[in-house]
Amino acid sequence: MADALRVGIAGLGTVGSSVARLLGEKSAELTRQCGRSLVVTAVSARDRTRDRGVDLSGAAWFENPVEMARKGEIDVFVELIGGDEGAPREAVKTALEAGKHVVTANKALLSKHGVSLAEVAEKKGVLLNYEAAVAGGIPVIKTMREALAGNTVNRVFGIMNGTCNYILTRMESEGISFEACLADAQRLGYAEADPTFDIEGNDTAHKLSILTSLAFGCKISAADIYLEGISNITQADIRAASALGYRIKLLGVAQRTESGIEQRVHPTMVPTASVIAQVHGVTNAVAIETDILGELLLSGPGAGGNATASAVIGDIADIAKSRPGFQHGPVFGRPAKELSPYRKAQMRSHAGGYFIRLTVHDRIGVFAAIAKRMADNDISLESIVQHADGALAKDQKTVVLVTAETTEAAVRKAVDGVTKDGHLTDKAQVIRIERAG
Amino acid sequence: MADALRVGIAGLGTVGSSVARLLGEKSAELTRQCGRSLVVTAVSARDRTRDRGVDLSGAAWFENPVEMARKGEIDVFVELIGGDEGAPREAVKTALEAGKHVVTANKALLSKHGVSLAEVAEKKGVLLNYEAAVAGGIPVIKTMREALAGNTVNRVFGIMNGTCNYILTRMESEGISFEACLADAQRLGYAEADPTFDIEGNDTAHKLSILTSLAFGCKISAADIYLEGISNITQADIRAASALGYRIKLLGVAQRTESGIEQRVHPTMVPTASVIAQVHGVTNAVAIETDILGELLLSGPGAGGNATASAVIGDIADIAKSRPGFQHGPVFGRPAKELSPYRKAQMRSHAGGYFIRLTVHDRIGVFAAIAKRMADNDISLESIVQHADGALAKDQKTVVLVTAETTEAAVRKAVDGVTKDGHLTDKAQVIRIERAG
Repeated sequence: MADALRVGIAGLGTVGSSVARLLGEKSAELTRQCGRSLVVTAVSARDRTRDRGVDLSGAAWFENPVEMARKGEIDVFVELIGGDEGAPREAVKTALEAGKHVVTANKALLSKHGVSLAEVAEKKGVLLNYEAAVAGGIPVIKTMREALAGNTVNRVFGIMNGTCNYILTRMESEGISFEACLADAQRLGYAEADPTFDIEGNDTAHKLSILTSLAFGCKISAADIYLEGISNITQADIRAASALGYRIKLLGVAQRTESGIEQRVHPTMVPTASVIAQVHGVTNAVAIETDILGELLLSGPGAGGNATASAVIGDIADIAKSRPGFQHGPVFGRPAKELSPYRKAQMRSHAGGYFIRLTVHDRIGVFAAIAKRMADNDISLESIVQHADGALAKDQKTVVLVTAETTEAAVRKAVDGVTKDGHLTDKAQVIRIERAG
Repeated sequence: MADALRVGIAGLGTVGSSVARLLGEKSAELTRQCGRSLVVTAVSARDRTRDRGVDLSGAAWFENPVEMARKGEIDVFVELIGGDEGAPREAVKTALEAGKHVVTANKALLSKHGVSLAEVAEKKGVLLNYEAAVAGGIPVIKTMREALAGNTVNRVFGIMNGTCNYILTRMESEGISFEACLADAQRLGYAEADPTFDIEGNDTAHKLSILTSLAFGCKISAADIYLEGISNITQADIRAASALGYRIKLLGVAQRTESGIEQRVHPTMVPTASVIAQVHGVTNAVAIETDILGELLLSGPGAGGNATASAVIGDIADIAKSRPGFQHGPVFGRPAKELSPYRKAQMRSHAGGYFIRLTVHDRIGVFAAIAKRMADNDISLESIVQHADGALAKDQKTVVLVTAETTEAAVRKAVDGVTKDGHLTDKAQVIRIERAG
């Protein structure tokens, strides 16, 4: 049997501890699968004394992950520290330059520095694996990077933040407010004390930016993503969506258009009968549409120590099965130097149209004024319905419009017009409708 | 750049022609992804003159695939002939023994001879890839063989036959009979002239047997699969299922039990709100439940020239990225010689219980007699409901029972008892209910 694969783990939080523990517990099976044993020979974390439920006494201890990357007697550097600058970035770069393979779950780091790190990995002929960085335990990176070879991707979209999906699921199933759901999610550990990063869509954007590069062979550009979170979603939206046969999900969407690549993260209405609409709670799902294969959907646990550890271990096992002399596939599907520049497309039309919810004064002529603003902007309406809403004052009404396919600019102009007309008693709510199988 | 990978394709039907054509059309992108070009240098088919929409004049032509396997100047032998004996088996074996990698879509061959072929591949240090053999373009083999390294699988189940799912979907959505749907499926090319192999579950069983080996590290045993097709499913079943919140799907299920591995293919009721219940038409889906990750579901096109070709090309690309000196992972997840014997478990209990539909004489005491037979066999009932059914004669009634978790043996004994009591006017219908996320 070949020599053991020596693994160094930097970061011993929930995921790092799970990886270390599972490499021990699953040692026999992993050895059978990989043809060699996988041994943790080095670890790096701040607090050496904390009980992590796993015996690490046999591993060399490094206070500094960069030191471990440089001097650790390891074949694989596993980065589970998190954060896009400082020690984790320096450590990953150092490990790659030292000819060590790297496995990381760090979406922020890859989103910001993925391409330059890929260049180092490819120059050194080592692997940079990052399955756990996107949608936790779902093998979407492996699928896009390997299984879909030769396919041209047209659209990739998904539910990639468990916190948001948990909140939206409970808002719908229990009829409670965004604020109440968020508080519960925080109590249960599904949301951070400061939840901004999750609920405003930044976390989804990081993950989407990585998928975009894999899907379209372009450089990573998270800064160019249109971003809208779920904090403005109300029970009125959820109820109106349900009445129309839709469910609201926070989606990250990247698609090829004539003018470039469109990347966006926002609350989206998907048909209740679609597969992605059945993805509940903290579960994640990613759909990929390609020219050869058609539509593929993967769903599963998107977060949590064990699910993330599963992806990390899969990445380590792939390295264990490779041997010196193996020419690895490129980190982002094609060589980093050949990734095309990211060409940003403006958000344009939506095949599914738009949902617009307006709270208006209850007076004659309001419907006509709204309909005229839509017509003036060439927006074709599929429906315009007045909804009863007990939560509103007596002299107010809810009007819900569903448009046919139209442009983002037209909708914004029309809604601005309706607002200027003075009929609204509250800010207009606009939610995009997404075609989904 | 490394030398081109020389590909030989045996079988130029729909899939084979698609693979040959796509390797040409996608040549630039595949070369970027693999770091070398992929060139079809040999082909084998019976009819040399047929127009297949692709120029194969540069490839050596072999009448006999075994000859191509032996003498073709190829690195990869792609077997797309089909059939579990004769030329395809001999050709695959010959190619592996000659130190050539093999890619195949042949589920029947693997189901019957996969383990012995894997032994040859592993001895020779070449790859035997077969993503297209199970669920077409869905990367379930790659996921189970690579991404889930270290995970212990508890259950794997799925919709793996597009013909059956197409028929069941149309029966539900349009309220038409099995016979009418089948005739339509045949007219549209979704079903063969002799549809037995699909509709009686044999095709699903072949695919399931391969997943079972990957999931549980055991030898392949298709002969030990409990088999029941969809030809007995009626509109009465579909309607009763719908009323109870279920949808009927033909599932292949393999699960670990205390007494061994249970493998079964049969019509199954899954909750309408589950993800797998939204998998419509010819689409396939596979769910995998493991100890570390939890539940993963993959859905996508399960058949068709392009979807199958996509999986074949992914397999070829994986080979192109590997190089001499690369020690491959084992064909069925662990070395063929270490696969454990298949230990068959009897079908036992179902967490979701059973659906039983009885057509009975409309007379006093029938409910009581049925309920007594259930109680005598320790079957706890969740509901017993009389359904109106206009299709029945005036003096007949439909009675639908849903049981709590119980054993297969108890249900069979109870139904035998009810039948002997003389209350039934038609054969009892028993459908298993499956827990699904």
